[in-house]
Amino acid sequence: MAGPRIAPHRLRQRLEQLAIIGRDPEGGITRLPFTPPHQEAVRAVAAMMAEAGLAVGVDEFGILNGRRDGASDRPAILVGSHLDTVPRGGMFDGALGVLAGIECAHALREAGVALRHPLIIVGFADEEGSGFGLGTLSARVLVGLVPRNQFARLHDATGRSLAEHLAARAHGLPVARIPARVRAYLELHLEQGPVLDRKGVLAAAVEAITGTLRTTVTFHGRANHAGTTPMTERADALWGAAEFTLTVRDLARASGPPAVGTVGQLMVAPGVANIVPGRAELRLDLRSPDETRLQALRLQIASRAEEIAAALRLTVEVAAWDHTPAVVLDPRVRASIIHALETCGQAPLVLESWAGHDAGIIAQYAPAGMIFVATTGGISHAPDEHAPWPAVEVGAQVLLETLLALDASDHAGEMIPLAYESEQRLA
Amino acid sequence: MAGPRIAPHRLRQRLEQLAIIGRDPEGGITRLPFTPPHQEAVRAVAAMMAEAGLAVGVDEFGILNGRRDGASDRPAILVGSHLDTVPRGGMFDGALGVLAGIECAHALREAGVALRHPLIIVGFADEEGSGFGLGTLSARVLVGLVPRNQFARLHDATGRSLAEHLAARAHGLPVARIPARVRAYLELHLEQGPVLDRKGVLAAAVEAITGTLRTTVTFHGRANHAGTTPMTERADALWGAAEFTLTVRDLARASGPPAVGTVGQLMVAPGVANIVPGRAELRLDLRSPDETRLQALRLQIASRAEEIAAALRLTVEVAAWDHTPAVVLDPRVRASIIHALETCGQAPLVLESWAGHDAGIIAQYAPAGMIFVATTGGISHAPDEHAPWPAVEVGAQVLLETLLALDASDHAGEMIPLAYESEQRLA
Repeated sequence: MAGPRIAPHRLRQRLEQLAIIGRDPEGGITRLPFTPPHQEAVRAVAAMMAEAGLAVGVDEFGILNGRRDGASDRPAILVGSHLDTVPRGGMFDGALGVLAGIECAHALREAGVALRHPLIIVGFADEEGSGFGLGTLSARVLVGLVPRNQFARLHDATGRSLAEHLAARAHGLPVARIPARVRAYLELHLEQGPVLDRKGVLAAAVEAITGTLRTTVTFHGRANHAGTTPMTERADALWGAAEFTLTVRDLARASGPPAVGTVGQLMVAPGVANIVPGRAELRLDLRSPDETRLQALRLQIASRAEEIAAALRLTVEVAAWDHTPAVVLDPRVRASIIHALETCGQAPLVLESWAGHDAGIIAQYAPAGMIFVATTGGISHAPDEHAPWPAVEVGAQVLLETLLALDASDHAGEMIPLAYESEQRLA
Repeated sequence: MAGPRIAPHRLRQRLEQLAIIGRDPEGGITRLPFTPPHQEAVRAVAAMMAEAGLAVGVDEFGILNGRRDGASDRPAILVGSHLDTVPRGGMFDGALGVLAGIECAHALREAGVALRHPLIIVGFADEEGSGFGLGTLSARVLVGLVPRNQFARLHDATGRSLAEHLAARAHGLPVARIPARVRAYLELHLEQGPVLDRKGVLAAAVEAITGTLRTTVTFHGRANHAGTTPMTERADALWGAAEFTLTVRDLARASGPPAVGTVGQLMVAPGVANIVPGRAELRLDLRSPDETRLQALRLQIASRAEEIAAALRLTVEVAAWDHTPAVVLDPRVRASIIHALETCGQAPLVLESWAGHDAGIIAQYAPAGMIFVATTGGISHAPDEHAPWPAVEVGAQVLLETLLALDASDHAGEMIPLAYESEQRLA
């Protein structure tokens, strides 16, 4: 490794500085999209971008971006992740990818290295879906997967619509757009699972991003007196939800190619101690990086839901499924990442991603690659989320090496169908 | 039956008149204790009592009572039930017992029958526990089971304390107290279960009132990412709650002497679709009219909770149990009711009560008896709660016959330890 090198202390300092924003006394970090802590984070990261010599702005979808020029006729290399968090999340999820991107730009500037391609560091606004209930929202909005006429209909817990938040531009930063012609998108992220940590490996390339199927399942029974209704006469909706929850567990466990299934929300009505539940509504999340397996699991579970309901004298309603298909990332970008891992003295490990990522959306239009770093104990979306500092350092250097390799190769780039208002669209 | 007879049309008219108070457009009746609809009901029933020739007032615990004189040195016969309802309840639960009592007094007056014992028709204020979270509250307060220093600490959903409600006397009626020396307490009530309706029987005597054990059970696991946490590594608190819910069902079903068990409330935290539940808290309600069986079920369930938690790598916390012991009602009063049933051409059927009742509290101090009438489809605590009109008529006449039989027999009465302020206590 003779080229530019990232500065681990500076990256760590910035991660720790950003971690203060939205942190509660127990260490949980809450930066729900467009809330004041998130907007404060956008401003703080914009300042870091400026320190790294980037020209900074926020586009009309709330996406922070910082530009380093290359030759004007070349497609841009995008590097980034997101700046929002789940409620009481940790300091690495999302933040790592954005700040490591900035560190790459900073290191290139310090080393006096000019890239042939423009480099854009991107901070997506709502990846977690904790604001409006839809994951990778800002990436979806950017590419037009969420039409503009929905912006006024999406509301967060404060009652404000996405349209209102976007119009407010509470961050106070100038307008800057992401270019439509893209050489590649790179994202460094926590694995958020236990695989690398258990193997004692610091970083890996990502092969595919899990597909996700979500739906709401509602069991309907008959609310009745919890004393006077004999056990044999009950149509207890919670019995259905309980059997269903265990069935989801058992079917996901039994799945040949790996899959996971989670019931993360469950509401019982009327929800009174002395009334047999008449309704139980739950939210189901199924994932597999193998799209065929994912669809098979969906069918199995839907059919078991009907059987459970029938056996318990209940009815069941399965709402429309939200589907994010599994995405196989670009094989050439992955090859560059694997090469960079080896350059940095790491094993050429390839993993699947069990979480959705902004890269999964961008990958539908342009070559995209992801680098994972180890996550201590696999714990994420929690205050004690942690990536070992050596993993952070290696991950960021692998990102830089990959960036340099992509910059060195020629590629016409792909046009991303950005959803910016057309009369103002930048070329 | 040569004696006085109740007037079914008048009783029905009064039930229908009372049913208008607190009724929503879909027919649900909501008269939470001390709210304006409940106070309006107290005034309306007071007017009915006056029509029946009773001397009416409300005691310092909000309990409506109407008095018909007997010999002054004899203990009183109390007849009643409650005037509050659950949220969106029906027109019979509670109201039937009070209005049937008034009808008995009215029928005696019309027939010119003087009783040897004073007769007090009682309308308890908070039996359902929908106001302050504690069932049979006004009966408990009356006998001192809830000490006065708790009145300021019990708050309803409007934020007002029981003390404030009692001080306000929003019904505007004069003060009248229930006498402490009591010959017997009689209560006519809906069965609220399916047994009589299924047998095609109109009314029955009650042998025992169910005991109830309630507690909160909390499973603790580890909140984690719903995608990246392999199925084999999860400590999903909802799995514990689901297995526990089904275990409660199966143990209650398998119980030799009958018992019921209900999980009516279940809350999952953090309660987000893409996070494995770290905590699941549920409210458990166990009942049996057989106190020994009830306690055995408690032990079985607590031990299974531990086993479930251990098998799923969870921990479980079982809070203190609220215990209302099972009550066997007075056998001599029951014999009078059975005789009255036969007098009215009914089979001498005896049932258990699976719901708590004011009679269960009074029975701890004085001879108490209950008469059940059939409940269509066993549906109660719901807008479509219904008692067939022939059952209402028979039930009220059985109440009157029982009352006359008790009046004819000599008994010194029992002293109920009423919690009225002692300096003003009536003899």
